[in-house]
Formats: sequence, C-alpha cells, structure tokens
Amino acid sequence: MAITTRSTHACCGGTLGFYSHPSDSLGLEARFAVFMPDGASAAAPAPVIHLLAGLTCTEETFLIKANAVRFAAEYGIALVATDTSPRGADAPGEDDSYDFGSGAGFYLDATQAPWAAHYRMGTYVAEELPALTEANFPLDGARRGIMGHSMGGHGALVHALRAPDRWKSVSAFAPIVHPSAVPWGEKAFTGYLGPDRAAWAAHDATLLLRADHTHPTTILVDQGDADQFLDAQLQPWHLEDAARAAGQELILRRHPGYDHSYWFIQSFIQDHLTHHAAILRR
Amino acid sequence: MAITTRSTHACCGGTLGFYSHPSDSLGLEARFAVFMPDGASAAAPAPVIHLLAGLTCTEETFLIKANAVRFAAEYGIALVATDTSPRGADAPGEDDSYDFGSGAGFYLDATQAPWAAHYRMGTYVAEELPALTEANFPLDGARRGIMGHSMGGHGALVHALRAPDRWKSVSAFAPIVHPSAVPWGEKAFTGYLGPDRAAWAAHDATLLLRADHTHPTTILVDQGDADQFLDAQLQPWHLEDAARAAGQELILRRHPGYDHSYWFIQSFIQDHLTHHAAILRR
Repeated sequence: MAITTRSTHACCGGTLGFYSHPSDSLGLEARFAVFMPDGASAAAPAPVIHLLAGLTCTEETFLIKANAVRFAAEYGIALVATDTSPRGADAPGEDDSYDFGSGAGFYLDATQAPWAAHYRMGTYVAEELPALTEANFPLDGARRGIMGHSMGGHGALVHALRAPDRWKSVSAFAPIVHPSAVPWGEKAFTGYLGPDRAAWAAHDATLLLRADHTHPTTILVDQGDADQFLDAQLQPWHLEDAARAAGQELILRRHPGYDHSYWFIQSFIQDHLTHHAAILRR
Repeated sequence: MAITTRSTHACCGGTLGFYSHPSDSLGLEARFAVFMPDGASAAAPAPVIHLLAGLTCTEETFLIKANAVRFAAEYGIALVATDTSPRGADAPGEDDSYDFGSGAGFYLDATQAPWAAHYRMGTYVAEELPALTEANFPLDGARRGIMGHSMGGHGALVHALRAPDRWKSVSAFAPIVHPSAVPWGEKAFTGYLGPDRAAWAAHDATLLLRADHTHPTTILVDQGDADQFLDAQLQPWHLEDAARAAGQELILRRHPGYDHSYWFIQSFIQDHLTHHAAILRR
C-alpha cells in the first residue's frame, strides 16, 4: 500500500506526519495524519487513539485545535486522525450543504445511490485505516482506542459499541448520541442509508445500547451546557438512559458555560488522554 | 471606545473573546482577541501577554495553534492577540504577496505612500491596543509582556527593546532578528519606510541592541534547527552577537529537527508562559 508523505513535523518530542494514500474502500485518494511519540519502535509499538472530527472538518482539525499532541507525547500514545468523508467523489450535490456529503461522511458505509460508490467511511475507519497505519508505523493494534467530537463522537461511540474487541477504549466530546432522532442524523441516514429506519439502528449509539451492544470499559463523554446544538442535535440524556438500562458504565460530564467549539475540547482533552492511557497502557 | 463582541467561548476555566473596534491609529475596523483567566477583577487585575503572529496570520492564529491558553489559565495570566496588519485599507497591490501588505504589517508605522494612510501597526500595538484592552478588561498594564512568532517575533523584540517600561517581559519563537539584512525585511522596510536605511534601524532588533537599546530582563528565544527560513530570513546568530556586545541577557535555544510551524511553537509554549509568569507575577 503506497503512502505519500505530504509533510512531517517534529512536535513535543515526537513526529507528526500528514499523509495520503489510494484508499481501496473509498476508491479515492484519502488523507490521514499520524503522531508518533518518541521511543516507539517495532519492538515496542505504541498504543494508539484514532481521532474522528465533526462536520466540515478534515484530518487536520482535531490535531490543530484540540491540543491532544502534548498529552499523547507525555503518555507515549500515538494518534491517528482520519478525514471526515471521501474527497473528490463528485457525487451530485455533495458540496451543497455543510451537514451532508463532503465533510459529513458520518463514519458509515452508504448503501444508496449515488453515495454508495465512495461514501464508505465505515469500512475505512473500522478496517482500512487501522490496517494501513499498523502496517506502516510501530503501532500496537491490540491497544487501539477511539475518540471523537460531535459527528466524530457519534462515530467513536458506534464503532466502539459494535466492535469492542477492535476499539479497547472510547470517549467523546459533544457526540450525536441518537442520530436517528435528530435532524443531522435523519438527513444523513435518509441520504446514505435510505428511508428504512431498521437500517439505521447499527449507526446509532443509543439504539446499539438498547440492543445490548455494550463496551467493557467506561465510556467518557464531555458535554458543554452552553452548546448551541445541545437540545436540537445532541440530546445526551438518551445516551444516559440507554447506558443505565444496558448496564453500560458511562461518565457523562456536563460543563456549565462551555459551547460546541474546540475551545471546549482543549479545556478537557487532558482528561480524555488520561482516560485512554489508563486502559491502553495496562 | 466602542468594542463589538464577535464571539466568546469558555476555555480552560476562563473566557476567550473575539472582538472588533474602530481603530484610531489604523483608521479602519480592527480585530483582536482577549483571553481572561478565571478570577481576574478590577480589584485584582491580571498580568497580560500580547501575542504577535507571523506573516499571513490573523488575531486567531496564535490562539488556535500555539496551545498557550491552557498555561495562561494555569498561571492566571491574560492574553491579548492582535491582527497582523490593517484590513480593508484597499492599498494598490496589498493582496499581491504573502510577505507584504495585508497580513504582513511588520508591527511598524509606514511612512511611504500609499501605506502610511493605514499601515500603522506600530502605534496600534504599542499604544492603542494596550489602552483599549486595559480600559475594557481587568488587566494590569504595569505587568504587560509581549511574545511573537517569526514576523511577530521581530515585533515583540523591537517593541520591547524600544520601550522596556511598557513591555516588562519578552520572548520569541523563530523571530526575524535582523530584518534589514534579509529579504523579508528588506522588501517590507523598502515599501513601508522607503529606501533610506537609516529609517530602518528602529525596527531591527539587532540594530537596536547595537545602539544599546537593551531590556532589563532575560530575552527568551526558541529556534528550530530544521526551520526552512533559518538561513535566509532568520539568522539568529546576529541576535546572539549583538546581545553579547550589548550585555543583554539572552537565552537562545536551538532545537534539532524542529521547523517554523506552530507544531514547533506548541512544543515549547509552556516554557514561554513560565518565563513571562516568573517576571509578571512578581
């Protein structure tokens, strides 16, 4: 698998690189980023956290704005950041709105035309990107976690609940916890998956928990109380209720005054790295 | 003085705000940002560090990319970030290159037409922005420091060396230390100040030190050895030589493998906040 290095930068004692590669699952060139902490090697591969960003973002956003690298370096944990959608699919209308199409892949495999041809971020995140990065960097695939923000928080939760063996730790900032019931999710799922709501359940953290898909570790979620999307799109109480009913350990913290931005994320990012490190560094 | 609030965000226990105001010195609307740590009040105003960014940047760049807010909050220090040039001056050719005109104000007052009308970032940074922010936020003007990157490192050094009573602490990342002798500076100074090099000396940290303008505190400078602009534009050895001759205390650290980016800055930003805090929190 050919990887093109777009740039590399020394950062916090490690190396941050931006790359692209021809993606089999997307059928397009895809971009990603990897932060390798100092000291990782084939003999001592690093645990890794995959970062999933929100609507309109790219593989750069979480790394630039969340301040995660400092703590990853401190804990000896690698970071892998994916783009949020295919690029260059040229699907009709894919650039018409911020919450559907390019920049809004929702980390799922579309089944509906014209999206099914390239919008396959589900397979990309679950299989192709872990395999690609673990074949090319000294990463320990047995100690792999996942974290995301907003649409990426949705992605982190559903991927971890569906495949707890693949994702050993999970956390989210301001996730879309019940996309089937809110406008962002209804628009995306109708477009990518079609109108039959039975097909949506595997892509909805609340519905997965209700179907007894749980994760063996505690899920950490942070949510700002001044988040402009709290009531209309995020509705974290659904996750709390479903976790309680399923016996899922969940720490959901509400932070008065904090909004949906990365200024919120950077305020609490250290706690998330600490949460993942406690699991992945065992 | 009327300030328009563009947005505010809770961050790291304090408040980060983005603002605009009609600037007297620029004759245009200008943008700036302020981070106020928790606990500052009129009775207990916070020390403050002004942040000057480099070519092509805005008042947002340093705050988004440098990871300074976390440590400012920890130390109880406020941050003020300025834009790097006037906006909307409509001077002929101001958008033609990345290193002159918009985004490239060099923190000086232009004397040459057509730039002299609005390109007055020297007065803006030295006088108007401190006065404006200290009249409207609980900031302690007697404990005011300055820090910058690249063109902003040049700005921090020359402003502090010219007015050590105004700027009580100073540091820089990868500064243009001798602009009179390098292409970026020669282009900017010729355009803004005219061809007479005698007029350039007050805007050149190396020449200021040679003229015995010193700062009573230690100047902290970090420089990456893999900086793509090191030899052609930055040439930190001029600063070392001039500081030694002038008796200026200087800590200039070279970091193997680090480049000119904010990935470099965020790797060492904590040391800069600690440096300023040791002086400003006395």
